[in-house]
Amino acid sequence: MSVRTDPAPRRRDWQALAAGVLKGDRSAIGRALTLIESRRADDWTAAQSLLNHLLPYSGKAQRVGISGVPGVGKSTFIETLGTYLTGVEHRVAVLAVDPSSGRTGGSILGDKTRMEKLATDTNAFIRPSPSAGVLGGVARATREAMIILEAAGFDVVLIETVGTGQSETMVSDMVDLFLVLMLPGAGDDLQGIKKGILELADIIALNKADVFADKLKQSMRDYKAALHILTDASPNWHPPVVACSGLTGEGVAELWRTVEKHRRITTDSGERDNRRRTQRLTWLNTQLRDRLVEHFDADASVKAIRSDLEEDVLAGRRTVSAAVDSLLSAWTRPDKETGGP
Amino acid sequence: MSVRTDPAPRRRDWQALAAGVLKGDRSAIGRALTLIESRRADDWTAAQSLLNHLLPYSGKAQRVGISGVPGVGKSTFIETLGTYLTGVEHRVAVLAVDPSSGRTGGSILGDKTRMEKLATDTNAFIRPSPSAGVLGGVARATREAMIILEAAGFDVVLIETVGTGQSETMVSDMVDLFLVLMLPGAGDDLQGIKKGILELADIIALNKADVFADKLKQSMRDYKAALHILTDASPNWHPPVVACSGLTGEGVAELWRTVEKHRRITTDSGERDNRRRTQRLTWLNTQLRDRLVEHFDADASVKAIRSDLEEDVLAGRRTVSAAVDSLLSAWTRPDKETGGP
Repeated sequence: MSVRTDPAPRRRDWQALAAGVLKGDRSAIGRALTLIESRRADDWTAAQSLLNHLLPYSGKAQRVGISGVPGVGKSTFIETLGTYLTGVEHRVAVLAVDPSSGRTGGSILGDKTRMEKLATDTNAFIRPSPSAGVLGGVARATREAMIILEAAGFDVVLIETVGTGQSETMVSDMVDLFLVLMLPGAGDDLQGIKKGILELADIIALNKADVFADKLKQSMRDYKAALHILTDASPNWHPPVVACSGLTGEGVAELWRTVEKHRRITTDSGERDNRRRTQRLTWLNTQLRDRLVEHFDADASVKAIRSDLEEDVLAGRRTVSAAVDSLLSAWTRPDKETGGP
Repeated sequence: MSVRTDPAPRRRDWQALAAGVLKGDRSAIGRALTLIESRRADDWTAAQSLLNHLLPYSGKAQRVGISGVPGVGKSTFIETLGTYLTGVEHRVAVLAVDPSSGRTGGSILGDKTRMEKLATDTNAFIRPSPSAGVLGGVARATREAMIILEAAGFDVVLIETVGTGQSETMVSDMVDLFLVLMLPGAGDDLQGIKKGILELADIIALNKADVFADKLKQSMRDYKAALHILTDASPNWHPPVVACSGLTGEGVAELWRTVEKHRRITTDSGERDNRRRTQRLTWLNTQLRDRLVEHFDADASVKAIRSDLEEDVLAGRRTVSAAVDSLLSAWTRPDKETGGP
């Protein structure tokens, strides 16, 4: 199914699309996702109508972010976890946040080739990362894709992120649980933990436990020690370190039971609801801010003087406040929003 | 010297003020700091002229951020370090970033009472945190205070921050070196390391080493282990863990030698210059963004509909994108910038 070449639907078609999505029709889901990823201004209104219609049907899925550096075995892990989940009657959607991905030509099938079994599973739906240009655009498209997929009945949404700080923070801010995959044998520089990643993790899973069996025990101790000196984000949940293997399936069912335990505990304590409310407000403010700045950055009179002012600031010839004054003064407000990202 | 009650100088007085600052006149320095902290629109232009004039004379100091939770002994440590530094011919300015501080009435003298010796040292200058309302305002005032104090000949600037994540990141983004004070005995929850603080530290100093002598060795091992699994921000500097006592002075001179070593290494590698350039560009973009958002938030038509829209988003009745559309459409651009924060 080559979603990318589906024609974007015309404005009035969104009602039919919404009906298709709610029935779980795969072609309708694909076209709905293409619509919300479209950067054409005339698709924006239709996309927003569609999303507003589907919104009440969304929100019931378990949302899990999955992060890890290249080589940690994310694809194989997600293939195995996803297949396990559809085997126990779940319907699984897989999204990806990879701001670096340019989804053109052959690369659209990238994620599906990496997850062959899951790609042909009728209870799974894999969607590669949108190439929406800026990180904020990717985040928006991913959150809105989640609305569509939840409305279509997927009760588990796995969001894969590449290991860059910003996309990890972004994904952790749209999920109920953030899972970090690591290789046993951390401690040397190559395996070093990236900035802030420990603080985001609700679970740390040491993947390829079968291959690195000799390093496993020491690694678990190291990570537990590292987590121990961090203050828990939740009074009710101390992030556990577990072992698994995406290749053999070892530990994957146990890992999912830990995810379910986290869901139970945070649901009972009200933290899950709170986290989602906070995420919505944060998202609102982030999107507002991003789109304001977008207008500003695109302004012709701002552009005309900006690089000279930046040079002045870098060279110490002008204070930052003075440069900001000049830039704000140069700004002529763009036309009122007519929609479009 | 009660700087707060100095009348703010009139527009034309900045030239005289600049001359006084460059001579190192304490009263002129105090009035210059009051001017840049002023939130009155008509002080803004004078402040900017003053800063642009002083800018070429700034930049030569060693800028050190000092962080640590309440109880870690920051004031005593800064008092001891500052007195040591003036004793070896340095001129030391102490600034504070504490967004929670309301500097009214008696509390203006807070920092000076806490640092009695340094407060009467003619080679030191202590300035409490400005209470500029928002964090961005405090950051701006602190960076601009640094320009004034460096132009006045202070060659060491110590910036104290209270232990909250945002103000720590902010301070680490305006200094050459970020020093984190900890108490030996970390590992239990009370002493837990806060989100992201390890990643900011260029040096970790275990303070009150005299009091917690029994826990010192184990703590040093723990922190070193924790730092070990983090990837170094610099290829040339692995953050060391040192012990000291603000009370007895033990380890303070050694600590300063480590600061100087860091300066040498990062100067030679070019990282110090790069860090400062990056800081300036980041600051420019942050201030632009903050002031754009400020205008937006203050807009009457935005205010009129905002809380209803937020409620809709929280209740799941409206998508975030739709709410942002409505807010941006409601916005009428404020008058062109006439200056003033």
